[in-house]
Amino acid sequence: MTGFPPIDPPPRVLLGPGPSAVPASVLRALGLPTVGHLDRYFLEIGDQVGALLREVFETKNELTLPISGTGSAGMEAVLANLLEPGDRALIGVHGVFGTRMAEVARRCGAEVVEVTGDWGRALAAEDFRKAAQGRGMKLVCAVHAETSTGVLQPLEPLREVADELGALFVVDAVTSLGGLSVAVDARRLDAVYSGTQKCLSCPPGLAPLTFSPAAAAALARRRTPVQSWYLDLTLVTRYWGSERLYHHTAPINMIYGLHEALRLVHEEGLEARFRRHRLHAAALWAGLEALGLALLVPAAERLPTLTTVRIPEGVDDLKARNLLLDEFGVEIGGGLGPLKGKAWRIGLMGASADRRNVNACLCALRAALAAQRYPAPDPIPAADAVYGAG
Amino acid sequence: MTGFPPIDPPPRVLLGPGPSAVPASVLRALGLPTVGHLDRYFLEIGDQVGALLREVFETKNELTLPISGTGSAGMEAVLANLLEPGDRALIGVHGVFGTRMAEVARRCGAEVVEVTGDWGRALAAEDFRKAAQGRGMKLVCAVHAETSTGVLQPLEPLREVADELGALFVVDAVTSLGGLSVAVDARRLDAVYSGTQKCLSCPPGLAPLTFSPAAAAALARRRTPVQSWYLDLTLVTRYWGSERLYHHTAPINMIYGLHEALRLVHEEGLEARFRRHRLHAAALWAGLEALGLALLVPAAERLPTLTTVRIPEGVDDLKARNLLLDEFGVEIGGGLGPLKGKAWRIGLMGASADRRNVNACLCALRAALAAQRYPAPDPIPAADAVYGAG
Repeated sequence: MTGFPPIDPPPRVLLGPGPSAVPASVLRALGLPTVGHLDRYFLEIGDQVGALLREVFETKNELTLPISGTGSAGMEAVLANLLEPGDRALIGVHGVFGTRMAEVARRCGAEVVEVTGDWGRALAAEDFRKAAQGRGMKLVCAVHAETSTGVLQPLEPLREVADELGALFVVDAVTSLGGLSVAVDARRLDAVYSGTQKCLSCPPGLAPLTFSPAAAAALARRRTPVQSWYLDLTLVTRYWGSERLYHHTAPINMIYGLHEALRLVHEEGLEARFRRHRLHAAALWAGLEALGLALLVPAAERLPTLTTVRIPEGVDDLKARNLLLDEFGVEIGGGLGPLKGKAWRIGLMGASADRRNVNACLCALRAALAAQRYPAPDPIPAADAVYGAG
Repeated sequence: MTGFPPIDPPPRVLLGPGPSAVPASVLRALGLPTVGHLDRYFLEIGDQVGALLREVFETKNELTLPISGTGSAGMEAVLANLLEPGDRALIGVHGVFGTRMAEVARRCGAEVVEVTGDWGRALAAEDFRKAAQGRGMKLVCAVHAETSTGVLQPLEPLREVADELGALFVVDAVTSLGGLSVAVDARRLDAVYSGTQKCLSCPPGLAPLTFSPAAAAALARRRTPVQSWYLDLTLVTRYWGSERLYHHTAPINMIYGLHEALRLVHEEGLEARFRRHRLHAAALWAGLEALGLALLVPAAERLPTLTTVRIPEGVDDLKARNLLLDEFGVEIGGGLGPLKGKAWRIGLMGASADRRNVNACLCALRAALAAQRYPAPDPIPAADAVYGAG
């Protein structure tokens, strides 16, 4: 067995774009004995997961469940279930995940109208109106929290656009759910998906999803079968609903983990959790600025859950991230697409949003900059000032 | 928190059609601390999982990886990657999973030619030839181990048919991989998928998959994009291959579990493992027959990993299974489709293929029959005879 030693993961402080730190009780839940996917005990756990997901989505939507795949499977589930060949979709594209939505929608046979914008800025409702040119749309799609840029997209103005165009409003909440308010019902979002490995602090593998009654009605009105059998919600809901009809075998232990992760959200309370994310983000921003680093996104459009920092001229991206990992055990993310080598992505999501992590990240970054002859002042006092520790 | 107590699964002896019993070391691996999906430690684990999967598939295929979804996602991945609109596929349909393959292939835009047969019998090569009527086929598809009926489908004769028709040979090995020899290279299977929760004894959530060089070439020759972005192997392989390019976040902890499950297979050795499955199946069959129960599938076509038993006239299916669960903690499966209420499905897969489980199942079944006034003799001596315990 020398070639294949047992799993023995190195200690990591997970401050990248996900996965975030997983609490010990969630890890324990993952490792509890497996039961059958039609076992009455597991069906009860499934019901509780539905109720807990409704709480964090802030919705009463009946069609609320975890898709058996990662966040990208959630994206595909939403688009494949709502789009039929020839349907028109208006999609905000100002980062990797908007780009991905457009690509997935095209593969569903939809006519995609892209609303493009700067990577690092929010999109305006006017941009959507202009791109639509008055044409009716089946869907208006936006990314609430762009994991590739750290931009927080205001949703209310886009809801208005969707209303004007007679469209359902689809939202990617992968990096917001559980970290900031998604407020599905209050904002009248029609179809929303997320992932488990971000602000819910569960390992990756499931994609929470919710459909409004209007989205569920659009699904029921389809003229063609959903092109993906695995993600076909007309079938998946027959297992998660009252029928309990076998579709595919649910990923039991992942559901255990999600149940515990959602229980922790419930216990903390949404308001307290959102406040915690804002607090630690503010401290991180103060510390980063004290280090002399520039943040990519203007404060008003900045996500508390994921911060993008410009890499100073002359600093080597990989060398710096390797030092963070090797000497501090701290993982942060590199840039994607046009931001590759130009920005770092620092996540403070779920259990990772913690003062010790902010401090570890700031100290490690200072050391990494110093190692590349970019001496910076001690950033901790600036973070402390935000925490009010004097 | 009274509404949502922590997960506390009841003790179960998992002898249904999956999930099977998960060894303690696999459960422990699932609960180890999460690292990043681009962490060099995790990439090394990914490489090891690839190597271990090649071992159990008995292949040298480079394109061998776990799909981030359950077995049905593996089925969809194979069909969506190999089929383009208008392609013709010849599919054996004599149970739920052949039916499902046909449905998935149709949703990929393929022209499906079904080879139908009795639920509970293998299909003959002649049946495939007749249905093809000499037409060329892109794919010939068969289910190696039909989880809905317990039939073992001989593959060699169908490989010949595929050669005659110029087709790639696609095989569903969900209920065989790790329990009986799939022998991908020796049998020249072109595309094979499985699930983790059967003979690999890992919880559900991943779908091992392998493509022969011919299947990989067919993928590379596609004229249209794969309709599923999530399952697009031209993208997925760029993460699992040497490029390490981000596609979707791999389900880290599930991969930990699969790694450990495959390590246990490696440690036991394939031949010993297959022998163990055959031994316990034979003991179960002897015991079931001693109870006076009829097996659905003739001995020569019977799977060692999953046994279907006819429910005697006058015995209530659900009542019997509830007694098994409530009084013995034993889970067995009910019938699907035309076998609903007419057959039970007893799995002895992976860690579940164990003498204690055979005994528990036989004793529990005897009690369940007795409770419905079907007294039966003690089945243990018949099982003992197979074990050679006198």
